[in-house]
Amino acid sequence: MSENNLLFVGTFASAKSLNDLSIFGGYLAVENGKITRIGSAKDYEAEQKTGAFANFKIIQLNEDQFVIPGFVDCHTHAPQFPNIGLGLDRPLLEWLAKYTFPLESRYGDTNFAAKVYDTVVKRLLNNGTTTTCYFGSLHLNGTLELAKSVAKHHQRALVGKVSMNLKNEAGYYNETAKELAEVETFIKNVLDMKNDLVQPVITPRFAVSCDKELMSGLADISDAYNCLIQSHISENQSEVEYVLQIFPQCKNYADIYDNSRILNNRCIMAHAIHLSDEEIKTLAEKGVSVAHCPASNTRLKSGLCPVRKYINNKLIVGLGTDVSGGDGSSILEAMRRTMDVSMHLELQGHEKASLSWTEAFYLATLGGAKALRLEEKIGSFEVGKEFDALVIDTYAQDGPIDKYEHSSAAIEDRATSLLEKFIYLGDDRNIAQVYVNGRKVKNITMK
Amino acid sequence: MSENNLLFVGTFASAKSLNDLSIFGGYLAVENGKITRIGSAKDYEAEQKTGAFANFKIIQLNEDQFVIPGFVDCHTHAPQFPNIGLGLDRPLLEWLAKYTFPLESRYGDTNFAAKVYDTVVKRLLNNGTTTTCYFGSLHLNGTLELAKSVAKHHQRALVGKVSMNLKNEAGYYNETAKELAEVETFIKNVLDMKNDLVQPVITPRFAVSCDKELMSGLADISDAYNCLIQSHISENQSEVEYVLQIFPQCKNYADIYDNSRILNNRCIMAHAIHLSDEEIKTLAEKGVSVAHCPASNTRLKSGLCPVRKYINNKLIVGLGTDVSGGDGSSILEAMRRTMDVSMHLELQGHEKASLSWTEAFYLATLGGAKALRLEEKIGSFEVGKEFDALVIDTYAQDGPIDKYEHSSAAIEDRATSLLEKFIYLGDDRNIAQVYVNGRKVKNITMK
Ligand SMILES: [Zn+2]
Ligand SMILES: [Zn+2]
Repeated sequence: MSENNLLFVGTFASAKSLNDLSIFGGYLAVENGKITRIGSAKDYEAEQKTGAFANFKIIQLNEDQFVIPGFVDCHTHAPQFPNIGLGLDRPLLEWLAKYTFPLESRYGDTNFAAKVYDTVVKRLLNNGTTTTCYFGSLHLNGTLELAKSVAKHHQRALVGKVSMNLKNEAGYYNETAKELAEVETFIKNVLDMKNDLVQPVITPRFAVSCDKELMSGLADISDAYNCLIQSHISENQSEVEYVLQIFPQCKNYADIYDNSRILNNRCIMAHAIHLSDEEIKTLAEKGVSVAHCPASNTRLKSGLCPVRKYINNKLIVGLGTDVSGGDGSSILEAMRRTMDVSMHLELQGHEKASLSWTEAFYLATLGGAKALRLEEKIGSFEVGKEFDALVIDTYAQDGPIDKYEHSSAAIEDRATSLLEKFIYLGDDRNIAQVYVNGRKVKNITMK
Repeated sequence: MSENNLLFVGTFASAKSLNDLSIFGGYLAVENGKITRIGSAKDYEAEQKTGAFANFKIIQLNEDQFVIPGFVDCHTHAPQFPNIGLGLDRPLLEWLAKYTFPLESRYGDTNFAAKVYDTVVKRLLNNGTTTTCYFGSLHLNGTLELAKSVAKHHQRALVGKVSMNLKNEAGYYNETAKELAEVETFIKNVLDMKNDLVQPVITPRFAVSCDKELMSGLADISDAYNCLIQSHISENQSEVEYVLQIFPQCKNYADIYDNSRILNNRCIMAHAIHLSDEEIKTLAEKGVSVAHCPASNTRLKSGLCPVRKYINNKLIVGLGTDVSGGDGSSILEAMRRTMDVSMHLELQGHEKASLSWTEAFYLATLGGAKALRLEEKIGSFEVGKEFDALVIDTYAQDGPIDKYEHSSAAIEDRATSLLEKFIYLGDDRNIAQVYVNGRKVKNITMK
C-alpha cells in the first residue's frame, strides 16, 4: 500500500460547467497526485474483489461526507492580511493611501514577511483554498518569502511581486528600470524553485500606480517568459475618472491596458465593476479573465459587479477574496456574497442577474481554474487532472451545521442537499481534509 | 464566594445608542443575575484591597478578550430549522406552499417538536443569541415544547404559537373559534411556567393566512393579557398585491393590520421591505417595531429593506435571522448582511443608506432589545439591567481570526479593533461564554 496511491470511495460533486452539477457515488483513484480512474460503486465492488486496489490506501467516506474540487481564489493580497476586518470606512483611493500602502511598505523586512505569509497560507489551506493567485508587495525578497511559504505548505499558487512606479505619499514605488529588473529576477527565482505548483505572475498594481513605460516593459517580460499577468480594472468610479485624467489619450480604462499590450489570454483582471459595453467586448475578445471580488466591492463601496452580464458576454469569471478590501478569506463566503450581489442586481432590475448556489460553486472551482488558465490541471474531477480536493464532513463535530434526524420533505436528493447546506452554512470546520496534487495538507479526524 | 455573584474584570463594549459605542476597561459586578456595580480599573484595585469583592467569583479577562451584551434575534421560525440552507429557489408564496407548510405541519407530533426545538435553542445560545422572538407552528402542544426547550436551556425568549385560519393546500390552518381558544390556552400555559425569561407572544402569521375576525380576536387577547404581538408585513411584492386583493376595503398593507387593531407599541413586524411613506408614518406613530431580516430578504428575492430611512423616520429596528427563509441562524451574520444590503442601497442611489459596523452592533443588541420592548432589562450594560452577555475571545484556538503579532498602523485603538475584527470575521468559536440573567449557558475553556 502506497501513500501515493489513494482510493476515495463515496460521493463526489463537481461542476462540469456553469449549468452542469455532477454528483455521483463511486470511487476515484489518485496515483502520484493525478486522478487515474473514476468508477461507479458497482465497478468498485467488482474491481475490489480482483485485488485491483491492493496497492491503494482506501478512504471510505460515510453518507454525510463527500468530495469536491478544491477552491480557487483568483485574487487576494497576502501582505494585507494583518488589516483584515479593519479600516473599511473609506473608498478605494483613500483606503490605499491611509491603511494599505503604510502596511504593505513594511514587507521589505523579510522576517516580518515570512511570519505573516506563513499564517496567510495556512489560513487559506484551512479554508479549502487549494489554489490562490496572490498579489505580494513591491518587495522582491519580501515576495519571495510568499513563494517560499506557499511551497512549504504545498499550496498551488500564482505569486506576484507588485509593480508600481508612480509616486505616492507612502513612498511605496520603484524607479522603472529597477522595477523591471526586479520583476525579471523575481520570475527567475520562482522558476528556480522548480516547484510545479508555484508559478510567478507579472503584477502591475493598476493604472493609478504604473505608467505606460512600466506596463509595456512588463508586457514584454510576460511574453518572454510566457507568464500570466494580473492587475485591477474599473473597481471604483473615482479611480476610473482619475486614470482617464492621467491617460488622456486613452478612450477608456481597458484601452489603457490594451495600449500597454497587457490584455491577452494570459491576463487576469480583478473587480471590473464599471465596464462599458465596449470594454466588455475588448476583454472578451482578448481572452482576459475577471476575478470577481464581491466582499471587497461592497466593503469599499466600489459597486455591484454584473457577473451574469459578463458571463453572457463570454468573459471568463472566477472568484476572489481580495483581502483586506474583502473582509473574509474564505471562498465559501465569496460564493455567498456572489449570490447576494447578483440577487440584489436582479432586485434592482437587472433581468435574470441572480446566480444560483450551483453556479456559485462552478465559479469557485472550475470557473476559477479557467480564469487562472489551470483548467487542464484542476477545477473538476477528470481522469488525468491533478487531485486538488476537499473532503467535506457535513455534520462535523462542533461544526456549524446541525443534523436534524427527521428532515423535511425531500427538497433535493440527499447528496445534493448536503452540498447545498455546506455551501450556504458550512465553514472550515466542515472541510475535514484538503488535498493538493494528491498530498493531504489538512486533516481533521472524522467521526 | 457565591456562584450568584460574578465580577468581570477586563474590557466591556456596548452600544448606548445608534451612534454611541461605549468601550471601557474596568469591572462589572453581577448579583443574582443583575448588574449591580460598574467601575473603572482604578476603582477595582482600590475596592479589591478593601475586600469589597470577597464574596464574588472573579472572571479576569486577558487583553484579547472582552464582554458585550448578548445578541437579540427579533424574528426566527423554530420549526423551519430542519430546512435551513435548502429550498431557496423560489419566492415567498411558492416557497411557503412547497417547502415550509409541509414541514411545519409535522409539529403536531410533540416528540418531533421537542427534538428539533432542543437543537434549535442550543444552536442559538451557542451563537450568542441570548434573546429570541420565536414563531412556533400552528400547534398548541408542539409550540409548548418550544417554550419548554427555551426554559430548559435558560434562554430568554418570546414564544408564539402561530395563528392561521385561511385555507391552504397543506391543510395547515385552524377554524377561527378553535384558534382563538388555543391561543388563550397557550398564553395561560406559558404564564403558568412562571419563568421570568419566557413570555408568550401573539402570532398571527400574516394577512395572507388570517382574516379580520381572527386578527381582531387576537388583538383582544393581546390587550387582555398585555401580550406582545408579532406578524409579517410587506415582505414581497406579490404578497402585497395579493393581500390588497383579499382585503379590498384597505388602502395599504399596514391598514389591514390597523383595521384589525394589531398595530400598537407592543407590536413587532418582520421584514417591512416595501412600505409606502404613509405606511412608515403609520407604523412609527403606532410605535410598531420592525425586525429586519436581510438574509431572508435576499435569499427569497424579497427586496432590500431601507433601514436607514426607517430609522430616520423614527421606526424602532432590530435584527432577525428569519430561518429558514434566512440561511443563517447567527446574528453576527445578520449584522454583516445588514451592512451589505444598506451599502448596496447606497450604491444604487439611496443617499447615506449604508450602516456602519458600530450601527449594526447597536441593532443587534440594544436596538433588538427596544424592538422587543425589553430595553429596561437587557441590551446594554447599565446598573439595574439583567446580565445577558457574551465573553468574546478574539483569537480563540482553532477560531476564524488569526493573530498577527506585527499588526498594521493603528487603525483604531486596540479594544475597538478587536470588536471590529470580531464583528467582521468572528463566529461562534469566538463566543467563549454566554450568560443569560447572570447564568452561564455556554462555556469554552479559554487560554
Ligand atoms: Zn486587489
Ligand atoms: Zn418570518
